[in-house]
Amino acid sequence: MMYSLEAGGKRLRPILVLSAAEAVSRNANARNIAMPIACAIEMIHTYSLIHDDLPAMDNDDYRRGKPTNHKVYGEAMAILAGDGLLTHAFYAVTRSAALGATPETALAIVSDLSRLAGAPGMVGGQAADMLGEQGVTSLEELEYIHLHKTSDLVVFSVLAGARIGGASPTQLESMQTFARKLGLAFQIQDDILDLIGDEAKLGKPVQSDVEEQKVTYPYLIGMEASEKLVERLTQEAKQALEEAKLAMPDRLHAIADYLMRRDH
Amino acid sequence: MMYSLEAGGKRLRPILVLSAAEAVSRNANARNIAMPIACAIEMIHTYSLIHDDLPAMDNDDYRRGKPTNHKVYGEAMAILAGDGLLTHAFYAVTRSAALGATPETALAIVSDLSRLAGAPGMVGGQAADMLGEQGVTSLEELEYIHLHKTSDLVVFSVLAGARIGGASPTQLESMQTFARKLGLAFQIQDDILDLIGDEAKLGKPVQSDVEEQKVTYPYLIGMEASEKLVERLTQEAKQALEEAKLAMPDRLHAIADYLMRRDH
Repeated sequence: MMYSLEAGGKRLRPILVLSAAEAVSRNANARNIAMPIACAIEMIHTYSLIHDDLPAMDNDDYRRGKPTNHKVYGEAMAILAGDGLLTHAFYAVTRSAALGATPETALAIVSDLSRLAGAPGMVGGQAADMLGEQGVTSLEELEYIHLHKTSDLVVFSVLAGARIGGASPTQLESMQTFARKLGLAFQIQDDILDLIGDEAKLGKPVQSDVEEQKVTYPYLIGMEASEKLVERLTQEAKQALEEAKLAMPDRLHAIADYLMRRDH
Repeated sequence: MMYSLEAGGKRLRPILVLSAAEAVSRNANARNIAMPIACAIEMIHTYSLIHDDLPAMDNDDYRRGKPTNHKVYGEAMAILAGDGLLTHAFYAVTRSAALGATPETALAIVSDLSRLAGAPGMVGGQAADMLGEQGVTSLEELEYIHLHKTSDLVVFSVLAGARIGGASPTQLESMQTFARKLGLAFQIQDDILDLIGDEAKLGKPVQSDVEEQKVTYPYLIGMEASEKLVERLTQEAKQALEEAKLAMPDRLHAIADYLMRRDH
């Protein structure tokens, strides 16, 4: 569990949790209360990578520049490490209540996590991806997979932070739109980087989607249109953020800009 | 997910949730509020069987008389079905709040589940079992594995039902002792049935522990001593139950007696 958690990565999702909490409340204590949830979402993301890398799934040997979990500990331990991280994420969420979140808020976050990381969310996107494999041909199907495989955890991160920050229902709605579009832009940028990125910066082999004959946005609509779409989705995300009328939106805007321009 | 959930089984854990709720409160409504949690623990138990049966783990072809999940849907889908069930269990727990459990109680149950089903609980027991394999020699190690692999979910079931029923802290403590001993007796009886049980009644091949050279209670202390231990643990469990001074303990006593005498 620790091996994969400590392998690094951008920590995008935890940063979104903390930044969303701060953006709504302008209160450093909200960030502290949100910290266990920031940890929880990184555990969920990490477990999904461990299981995704297994021979029966994507069969990857490297992740974040290090051998994948099952390469080091064997498949049985990798499956269990994933199960352990997934389960412990929910424990982490309950810890926010010990730091000052109301039981109602903590329970709403448990409910969000169980849906957005579960069969109606990330696990469903993963299953659609596996079942589709080379068969995915329509843009709708690909969007479905990207929205659930990637956006749903981004949506969770932003919503959970916003809940801790005390967001109103209309703020929650705008922030959900922000996160959905940000997550989709992020995944399309991932598709792009897999084609034209720098292997050393990415920490994993490029062109893997091509090798595995995975259908991606660049494959379906071309590179130029994909880059334009990332830009458009980012602008729409930032507009939704404006509509949320947050106390301190700057960091979330900066994250959206950074993700659009990232090279890894 | 549905294939394995509907494969049947004794439904012991959900029955314990409902019976514990009723035993404490003498109130049929407590049983209704406990129902989503009864479903949750069956989802957790089922996910653990799906992952446990995988080729990288115990590599079993049959479970409850039917082909195992990965035999029907492939390994990738079996891993994801397990992940989906595990995640959805936490959603189910949150539903108890919609039926009348307080957010505090629902959150305490989320916390219990995340620990007793996670790395400090069932997943840890599973990992110790995998790492130990033929190497487990001491009774202490075997007890550790059994307590976590099996007892922890039994403890969760009884505690969750008791919490919904409104148990006092001293009642919770006695009921935890009851569940721990019941769970251990249950697992030793499983070891015994694997040696002398009826394949048709069990729905799986007997003597699999011998074939896999697994160390069991009968192997370590002999058949007669194992049978005596099941009886002693059951009596101690029932005594702890008496100490809880429950409003309606009869069904829990009956379950303890049934489990000791079961042939599958």
